[in-house]
Amino acid sequence: MSDMDRTRAERLMEEAGLDALVLFQPEAFQYAIGAPAGVATMWGRAGAAIALVPGDALSSLGAVISDHAAGMLRQNAAEIDLRIHRIWIDAVDLSGVTAIADIDGAYRRAGSIGPRPETFDRATCFNLLFDLLRDKRLDSGRIGIDLEFMPAADFEALKLAVPNVRWVDGSLVLRRLRAVKLPVEIQRLRRAAKAAEGGLLRMMDAVRPGAAVTDLSAAWKAGASDAAKAGGFALSSHWDFISVGPELSDMAAKVMPGALIKADVGTLVEGYSSDGARTFSYGSASRLAQEIFKALETAFHAGLEQIKPGNSFGAVHDAMLGSMRRDGFGEYYRGHFGHSVGGGVGIEEWPFFSAGNPEVVEADMVVALEAPFYGQNFGALMIEDQFLVTPAGAECMNSLPRGLLDLSESGA
Amino acid sequence: MSDMDRTRAERLMEEAGLDALVLFQPEAFQYAIGAPAGVATMWGRAGAAIALVPGDALSSLGAVISDHAAGMLRQNAAEIDLRIHRIWIDAVDLSGVTAIADIDGAYRRAGSIGPRPETFDRATCFNLLFDLLRDKRLDSGRIGIDLEFMPAADFEALKLAVPNVRWVDGSLVLRRLRAVKLPVEIQRLRRAAKAAEGGLLRMMDAVRPGAAVTDLSAAWKAGASDAAKAGGFALSSHWDFISVGPELSDMAAKVMPGALIKADVGTLVEGYSSDGARTFSYGSASRLAQEIFKALETAFHAGLEQIKPGNSFGAVHDAMLGSMRRDGFGEYYRGHFGHSVGGGVGIEEWPFFSAGNPEVVEADMVVALEAPFYGQNFGALMIEDQFLVTPAGAECMNSLPRGLLDLSESGA
Repeated sequence: MSDMDRTRAERLMEEAGLDALVLFQPEAFQYAIGAPAGVATMWGRAGAAIALVPGDALSSLGAVISDHAAGMLRQNAAEIDLRIHRIWIDAVDLSGVTAIADIDGAYRRAGSIGPRPETFDRATCFNLLFDLLRDKRLDSGRIGIDLEFMPAADFEALKLAVPNVRWVDGSLVLRRLRAVKLPVEIQRLRRAAKAAEGGLLRMMDAVRPGAAVTDLSAAWKAGASDAAKAGGFALSSHWDFISVGPELSDMAAKVMPGALIKADVGTLVEGYSSDGARTFSYGSASRLAQEIFKALETAFHAGLEQIKPGNSFGAVHDAMLGSMRRDGFGEYYRGHFGHSVGGGVGIEEWPFFSAGNPEVVEADMVVALEAPFYGQNFGALMIEDQFLVTPAGAECMNSLPRGLLDLSESGA
Repeated sequence: MSDMDRTRAERLMEEAGLDALVLFQPEAFQYAIGAPAGVATMWGRAGAAIALVPGDALSSLGAVISDHAAGMLRQNAAEIDLRIHRIWIDAVDLSGVTAIADIDGAYRRAGSIGPRPETFDRATCFNLLFDLLRDKRLDSGRIGIDLEFMPAADFEALKLAVPNVRWVDGSLVLRRLRAVKLPVEIQRLRRAAKAAEGGLLRMMDAVRPGAAVTDLSAAWKAGASDAAKAGGFALSSHWDFISVGPELSDMAAKVMPGALIKADVGTLVEGYSSDGARTFSYGSASRLAQEIFKALETAFHAGLEQIKPGNSFGAVHDAMLGSMRRDGFGEYYRGHFGHSVGGGVGIEEWPFFSAGNPEVVEADMVVALEAPFYGQNFGALMIEDQFLVTPAGAECMNSLPRGLLDLSESGA
């Protein structure tokens, strides 16, 4: 079922002068429609799954979807106006069939007759969209589409297939819509952050002299997976960037006394990715590492104070870079100190805590704030936590202490 | 290092009237340049990594790449003409630095001064491409780009940034280039197929009454991972579509006497995915299941006979569908009976064994041939193997027998 806030979508479309959004990116389809876009989207081409979101919040959603994916959509989203196209996968209901001679009848009873396309038929999909737009009297409207996803080759074909629509880039409307999270999205991101922390706890236990990056990564994954099981949910995926010691891209590096260990990790719950990072040392970290880390902590807190509704994303960047400058880092420069998180493409979601970014922080955004320092031939240091923006400020979704923890016996 | 066959690339570009290929898709970049495109491509936007492949096989490759990813590229591909842009990630070589006061000097020595963009700066990247094209006297050429990947929003910006080039869709040239595999690609696909079979063997051991889809999936993953370790290589990823029993999309299904178990699985080695499938029963399969499976086996062999250099991809589809028709399946219809495999987007790679497809089978292609039957309220049946096309025909990359194996004690 679609959980989208149609009233907010209507307002955003009105502000942008759009009559509707038509979305082709699989992640955007799933967001708008509340069901998977299906296997026919695997090639990154446009058409196999199309979501129609009319600007009028009272007008029902529409979708073009493959016959293969339609079943799940019907279960989850009965209220959606569906237009179905056949893809390459043959399937038939064999209930009551006991011999090959009866199989053809099963196809005929299901109305599933005739050739199937090599993969999916883009022209058919665009024609189904045309019908859907016409039925909703949107076929000569001003319609936003996700041109930041849509392959140029497919856009040319769409313009020919649906000629009277004024197609404009609706990417910014989609970004803004998605940046404020729904309760179900907040729950996924909470769960994902919790699982990732379970992984970090397991990884901390695995840190010992001789432990390799791959060992720490395996421990992290196992801990994250177990934390998800214990929480009663499943991980749809996971990722980790773990570095050990002075050579940042050395995947064969092993824990040695004095080494810095940075773990920037996330798990995905129903496609929504957490993002968080901690830094450890094995044995005492060098004095310089401790001083840099102190500067990162100060910057992190300076940024965190700025995360509240009404402030700009740029104010957070300004506070953090200013803090680093005051602490003696004259040439250090991060393009962003964090970002929204969610169920989009890539781990880091727009908007970003970047210089001068006028985008405004709103309640129910979920963001990751990060203060990293990468020293080649030295080691990586990083603090990153995930926050739910509340009317009063920011609520942390993580619970592990942020300090530079010594994991050796003398440190523990 | 790039392993691309530049002579073949030259010939394909000549046939298509192209002076060069300019590639934006991360997978295509990695193929052409032989090094990862880097994290700045995570959003699926064009520009962060750009590969230039001149038609003239004697003219060196060019690349636009982020400062973050450039290090690995320099190591792997010293002969490539590199143009580097700064991304959001700050990093500095701290060799010899012992105090914060000395860090600014380290940035200056590296020439790493000034602001960084929020993520990456598309305009800068396109300007670097412009410079590269001008230096190679390609700036008013007829250039193929991957418009099947490139987001429409980015293509509009590219046309403005590099105005005198005649941009045309080079996707077909890229597809044809990639469909014939290099020795290093064949090795990856062999390894991936081997690991997947290791997973299937482990999964077969785990089949017992009450075993759930998730148990079989976990056993498969563990076996695949161990097979890779034993073979001395790592898996970059893996995927599985396992079904148990009559309800095809029931992820909670458990093995019961008489159940069909279909495992369509693959592992990825350096981004190259295998594809293969086997079907099992627990206890005797129904007579209808056995009869359908026999028809699939006959179709599979009919298709396999057609896989040889000079035949069309369509001939394989024709042979297999004809075989099913002769065996009494009048309405069964698959859009394709298999496809190329490789390191592209999606598991299934162009070209496909589809109806009337005139594309010609060539030596050193690696293809997956599949004969599936999905019976809802019945069960899934499938045979799929991966083949290297040789001058004489097709060499199977799998070794497990293809039959419908009964995994119960009475069957074993």
